[in-house]
Amino acid sequence: MKKQWIDLNSDMGEGFGAWSIGGGVDEDIMPLISSANIATGFHAGDPNIMASTVALAKRHDVGVGAHPGYRDLVGFGRRNIRASAQELVHDVIYQVGALREFAHFHDVALTHVKLHGALYMHAAADQQFAESLIAAMRRLDPELPVFCMSGTHIHRCALDAGQPVACEFFADRDYDDSGSIVFTRQVGVMDSQRVAEKVIRACVDGVVETVSGHDIEIDFATVCVHSDTPGALELLKAVRAELSNHGIAVRRG
Amino acid sequence: MKKQWIDLNSDMGEGFGAWSIGGGVDEDIMPLISSANIATGFHAGDPNIMASTVALAKRHDVGVGAHPGYRDLVGFGRRNIRASAQELVHDVIYQVGALREFAHFHDVALTHVKLHGALYMHAAADQQFAESLIAAMRRLDPELPVFCMSGTHIHRCALDAGQPVACEFFADRDYDDSGSIVFTRQVGVMDSQRVAEKVIRACVDGVVETVSGHDIEIDFATVCVHSDTPGALELLKAVRAELSNHGIAVRRG
Amino acid sequence: MKKQWIDLNSDMGEGFGAWSIGGGVDEDIMPLISSANIATGFHAGDPNIMASTVALAKRHDVGVGAHPGYRDLVGFGRRNIRASAQELVHDVIYQVGALREFAHFHDVALTHVKLHGALYMHAAADQQFAESLIAAMRRLDPELPVFCMSGTHIHRCALDAGQPVACEFFADRDYDDSGSIVFTRQVGVMDSQRVAEKVIRACVDGVVETVSGHDIEIDFATVCVHSDTPGALELLKAVRAELSNHGIAVRRG
Amino acid sequence: MKKQWIDLNSDMGEGFGAWSIGGGVDEDIMPLISSANIATGFHAGDPNIMASTVALAKRHDVGVGAHPGYRDLVGFGRRNIRASAQELVHDVIYQVGALREFAHFHDVALTHVKLHGALYMHAAADQQFAESLIAAMRRLDPELPVFCMSGTHIHRCALDAGQPVACEFFADRDYDDSGSIVFTRQVGVMDSQRVAEKVIRACVDGVVETVSGHDIEIDFATVCVHSDTPGALELLKAVRAELSNHGIAVRRG
Repeated sequence: MKKQWIDLNSDMGEGFGAWSIGGGVDEDIMPLISSANIATGFHAGDPNIMASTVALAKRHDVGVGAHPGYRDLVGFGRRNIRASAQELVHDVIYQVGALREFAHFHDVALTHVKLHGALYMHAAADQQFAESLIAAMRRLDPELPVFCMSGTHIHRCALDAGQPVACEFFADRDYDDSGSIVFTRQVGVMDSQRVAEKVIRACVDGVVETVSGHDIEIDFATVCVHSDTPGALELLKAVRAELSNHGIAVRRG
Repeated sequence: MKKQWIDLNSDMGEGFGAWSIGGGVDEDIMPLISSANIATGFHAGDPNIMASTVALAKRHDVGVGAHPGYRDLVGFGRRNIRASAQELVHDVIYQVGALREFAHFHDVALTHVKLHGALYMHAAADQQFAESLIAAMRRLDPELPVFCMSGTHIHRCALDAGQPVACEFFADRDYDDSGSIVFTRQVGVMDSQRVAEKVIRACVDGVVETVSGHDIEIDFATVCVHSDTPGALELLKAVRAELSNHGIAVRRG
Repeated sequence: MKKQWIDLNSDMGEGFGAWSIGGGVDEDIMPLISSANIATGFHAGDPNIMASTVALAKRHDVGVGAHPGYRDLVGFGRRNIRASAQELVHDVIYQVGALREFAHFHDVALTHVKLHGALYMHAAADQQFAESLIAAMRRLDPELPVFCMSGTHIHRCALDAGQPVACEFFADRDYDDSGSIVFTRQVGVMDSQRVAEKVIRACVDGVVETVSGHDIEIDFATVCVHSDTPGALELLKAVRAELSNHGIAVRRG
Repeated sequence: MKKQWIDLNSDMGEGFGAWSIGGGVDEDIMPLISSANIATGFHAGDPNIMASTVALAKRHDVGVGAHPGYRDLVGFGRRNIRASAQELVHDVIYQVGALREFAHFHDVALTHVKLHGALYMHAAADQQFAESLIAAMRRLDPELPVFCMSGTHIHRCALDAGQPVACEFFADRDYDDSGSIVFTRQVGVMDSQRVAEKVIRACVDGVVETVSGHDIEIDFATVCVHSDTPGALELLKAVRAELSNHGIAVRRG
């Protein structure tokens, strides 16, 4: 069944101090998305950047989501750190609270939580962490949606517990037949039009073609375009143009 | 005019990871105080410690205050870092939010904010930072009391803006004739009884004897005993015993 | 065959900034050992502490070894971080160089390298990291001994490459029948005399009794007593007394 | 007296983890300079980047210098931190040693030390730190040149102690009549030809025109072009072209 609208999310505020990270510029990307996953200081982001990124999101009426990661600046949160579920949940609470205060400062509410990088994958694959995290969120904010991949541990835990979820479709990643993302160390430049058509197929037909050439069904409510994918801005423009051509609105749920 | 009751505050949760810091043990000190200044991760404290310290404070019905410092673990927040007022205000917002989330997680409200170490002194001495910080607090939480020293920039800014304040009397520090704390690099072991009597004189007569032997008037609503002062536990026991002898209750305002 | 002498090693300088870590005090332990594994800043240790710990080791004619760990202050280097072999080798080179400069400053030479915590275990278990590390050490300092456990990947790589090694016997850990250390999250207080006798048996008979009650042969040139084991100082005193009773000297190889 | 040759130095390796910093790309700039100031991890740089930057410098026969800064990633070492001279000297020893190990790994020798940002200015302005640092360098490496500005405390201390120095001329900064650099928060794009001519005048006539329009004499042995100045690559190309036109070689002293 064709979607009437879709949420578009992207990671924002992933600099640190004087450093920025390649791909796209937040000021350019923000007007094109409906949900911003704002880095919260452990893998990227610092208080100055968080403050300005929340302000930027508000200016464009974009949802302000917390994007917590492993405490790992040098690894950009992409390296798994073997830590207890409880310890990682505390790391998430800390980071969510920090961003929530900036949101409150700018008089907006948090719209979602999306874990970053290796922590995102850990919540997908590790039942104990997924359960502990969802239990914490039930207590902290039972209406706050979690962004995750369909069929993962965190997805099932959230469904079981009644925590709202928004499943993601990754516009700039390849899928295998199991519905998993094909890991690529270095994402290259993509054909914007092909990516846009992939998003349209997902929105209209609910399927994606895997790397082996089969179509699989995809369950999602939000489309992710990574801001550090080379050419992210062009991808987003192409995706928005095609969505518009097909009469699909871009907005939060 | 003799005080009927007084607040007793102490810095809590100032470990980091596997490290703790000397003086007293939080589990022993918490039952003796009424307000805990909980380290928020930049100079000390980590998410695990923050979670357990908030829980400990709640168990003893002790007020949960945020204790933000400079981003300086190696210097324990005691080294001044030359940074813009705005940048430092963002650092405080971040840290307050992180602790507020743990407080919320344990279903208690933040009771106060007290800056740590060199940042505490910076807010006392730097008008621009004091004004920026109070302006941010007006926006974030206009009912949240700020702990500070009487007569400092942050004190005056808070009074001018209508932000609640609680002035501090430092039981374990010496005063000079100007009402300032005499800086000591290394605080030695003190005579508990003498400290207790100093607190009683402050509470009953409103005065403290300075290092030059004069009495000066002291304006305060909360008494600070630093948890890393050698013998902090004995000091607190002696202070509480004398307060009890004089019929002065220990509780939050 | 009974040993005429044995090296005694302990981790030293494992504080950070104002923080120290429990167990023993470096000033007390240093005179009792012959090799100090000095923390190099990633899991513990900072430049001030490294400078004073090297000076302390020199004063007691104790060998100055580098003790590099994962970049993980909050986890004290005890959490595994999934990183490439090359990245970890670079982390080790960085830390070894930092300590070597302090050794040079105090006019002593580095005597050994011992990895810390989870990185020690990673070099034991991961062949690629072990090979990369030993290859780097061949290039950096082909005479510098590596402390490791007998039979591990790093041990075999060092032997194959001709890098000097000193195998370790852990006085304060239990062994299983495979010769592996039994992991314990929290090491309790031990009977000093029993530990001393265990060391004597290892030195005289070359065996240790495992947790299942069997004797296994042990190959080692240095005995480790962890400075953060509760009662470390008493353990070391008891071990030294028994070694002396049996005419076994304590010195570097 | 016209110089026959000049050293050209630039800061290299100032990324961190996945982050890079704007201006120029090290691979492009390295072939154009003769001395690289390689960030050593406290304000920028990490072990991976240090390893590859040393290798890159070696490939182009560029001098490998240590570029230590304050421990301040978020502030990029541009914020002054109030710390004791001894503590800062220890920070420098740590960082110099770390880079020296990578140089040794690539079989090259350190060619110089240049402090970064606020630490560079601190050594210029604070006599106690300058003296402590030079005393440490006398002990560590009495032949290692220090890059600094003429007439500063560190310059005088080095001259008094006999430590080699190389005074710097900043091609991409303005001078005032006192010979000091005019501080600019944000360096804009410069006219490459004008900068090149400024360097030629300095090399040929030994003077620079100040912001007030006067000529002052300049004493220097190395010319700095900051790699994060916008258009750094174009500046360096223009400078090299003009140096070549005037028969002035680019090489280390």
